[in-house]
Amino acid sequence: MLNYRENLSALPSYDGVEKDYRIKVNANESTLGLPPLVEERLLNRLGLVALNRYPNEEYYSLVEQIARNFSVASEQILLGSGSSEIIEKVFHAFGGAGRKIVYPQPSFSMYKIYAKAAEAEAVPFDLDAKFDLDVDAFIKKIRATGSSLAVVCNPNNPTGNTLTLAQVEEIAKNIDCAFLLDEAYVEFYGRSAFGLVKTYPNLIVARTFSKAYGLAGARVGYMIAQAEVTRMIAKTFMPYHMNALSLTAADIVYQMRAEFVPRIQMTVAERQRMFERLKKLSGVEIFPSQTNFLLIRFARAAELAEYLEALGIGVRYFAAPELKNCLRISIGTRMENDEVFAAVKNFVEGR
Amino acid sequence: MLNYRENLSALPSYDGVEKDYRIKVNANESTLGLPPLVEERLLNRLGLVALNRYPNEEYYSLVEQIARNFSVASEQILLGSGSSEIIEKVFHAFGGAGRKIVYPQPSFSMYKIYAKAAEAEAVPFDLDAKFDLDVDAFIKKIRATGSSLAVVCNPNNPTGNTLTLAQVEEIAKNIDCAFLLDEAYVEFYGRSAFGLVKTYPNLIVARTFSKAYGLAGARVGYMIAQAEVTRMIAKTFMPYHMNALSLTAADIVYQMRAEFVPRIQMTVAERQRMFERLKKLSGVEIFPSQTNFLLIRFARAAELAEYLEALGIGVRYFAAPELKNCLRISIGTRMENDEVFAAVKNFVEGR
Repeated sequence: MLNYRENLSALPSYDGVEKDYRIKVNANESTLGLPPLVEERLLNRLGLVALNRYPNEEYYSLVEQIARNFSVASEQILLGSGSSEIIEKVFHAFGGAGRKIVYPQPSFSMYKIYAKAAEAEAVPFDLDAKFDLDVDAFIKKIRATGSSLAVVCNPNNPTGNTLTLAQVEEIAKNIDCAFLLDEAYVEFYGRSAFGLVKTYPNLIVARTFSKAYGLAGARVGYMIAQAEVTRMIAKTFMPYHMNALSLTAADIVYQMRAEFVPRIQMTVAERQRMFERLKKLSGVEIFPSQTNFLLIRFARAAELAEYLEALGIGVRYFAAPELKNCLRISIGTRMENDEVFAAVKNFVEGR
Repeated sequence: MLNYRENLSALPSYDGVEKDYRIKVNANESTLGLPPLVEERLLNRLGLVALNRYPNEEYYSLVEQIARNFSVASEQILLGSGSSEIIEKVFHAFGGAGRKIVYPQPSFSMYKIYAKAAEAEAVPFDLDAKFDLDVDAFIKKIRATGSSLAVVCNPNNPTGNTLTLAQVEEIAKNIDCAFLLDEAYVEFYGRSAFGLVKTYPNLIVARTFSKAYGLAGARVGYMIAQAEVTRMIAKTFMPYHMNALSLTAADIVYQMRAEFVPRIQMTVAERQRMFERLKKLSGVEIFPSQTNFLLIRFARAAELAEYLEALGIGVRYFAAPELKNCLRISIGTRMENDEVFAAVKNFVEGR
């Protein structure tokens, strides 16, 4: 019997290849490849990466570009393999035996796992029936539990709703512990809280290239916080945790981020169009969303998901009780959305 | 004051851009880019990666290819961001408060850091004056300390020397705890212990694409162990920790690994040539190496490193007392090696 770390066996494993859907609207990915101009420049640039050398200036080049855009010092930026790694490491940095990590529920399902992996106690805080957050009660909960970290996803995944910046600030101002704001979908909302970082030394804002910037496969995310915070979080990242290919891809995409504005606008417009259409379906409850996905509640959600899957359409079904009968549908192209809507309508109307 | 994880502040941070050497023989990288045929195929293939999608089959495609090559089940292979991430996670899996991790010293300097990051006690075991490992004493030390993990780098970095497979087996057989064998340089030695995995359920073999396969920039490594071990270690890896670009690069390189044989042979031949030449320099002690680098000991090593640096030649100087007056010099191209040797000779002979 090998002597594994305490509680390791209680952690889940991740494996299995995902199904190959004809219309893949289950993972909030960008449905399009990179804009042609970006792709061309990226492929040319990848050919120049010295793969035989350990990554070096690629990391700092991207950091400096991000810092310049946000008008912060480069010491305030850390990169990770997707905001996933940022979240993992922030949880680790404020975790350990006896620490508590609070987050709203339902939210990103991985928070619970990251808390376990960090050997901290996960403290979910229930959203209300409309999936809104009672900010005052949340603050009270954070204080009453003596938590070391509070986490909010804004806009929230998988519910799609948001806190205002005033609400984010209210949380940051009224808690003493670290506050991780996961802004994975913020480009579809337009109101990032990064500007609050200079005022609140407990605030950490996590961002990603995986959603609006279509780089889920490259695994690049970043965090913005005050320099004293990044200095501590940096200790949890081992050297060379980022690779030169992904860093180069993110660097080009960030340089050319204006090219992504039209498709972000298209996604927002399509989301609104789908919202209006789904709202009219009898028996379907739909939640307002400021993201690239919509959440619906429908009594026969599990059956609907199976029906869609049989048509080659992958959507996200949730087993968690707080998301009973909910499906999350990412926004695709106009044609994909039309096909998804027609299929949902067919099923719901019993045709 | 934010409530950081216990002992986090004691961990070092990593940053700073490396100097740009004209001849870079300080990091045991492959001095050449990819073989032209490999590079061409790789760049074509990178253009086909669906970057907007989360990595999926790319992981399993590489796992299956590696498993087939070693005639093991795919469940016995895990991939990491370089063997660095493999080592980090294995240390984590057998770490935690009160656990001990034993490794020879001098060896890969990061073992100490990985042990700290895993919140385990680092237990270095001194190599002898020739940097050889007293296997029996090492086994006794592992048993006497009740360690949860023993780690050996074979061939050893930065000393270049090796254990025989019989010695590796003797360790695996005579300890009860986990045994991580770091084979980062094994392609230059030719004697991998992966075949012992089927007999010893405590053995974990770590390999990398960073050295012989010239992919240091892509950050891809892997481990081979029995399926029950990989199932536990897998829990320490969060989903999507690998990216599609690096996985694709490693996949192509592994498919075309025959293309790397001539340059591995060249490196071995050049290492031997440099060994013979350096050996003749008065005052220079040189250690036999089965890797892509050579370790020398010279009374004025620090000055020599500075002299080389002034010439644009980067070598590795060690501050650790157990490597007093030692320099590690990676093997470059024949021309690079000639220039490095001429410079060392000039300095040593006081010209």
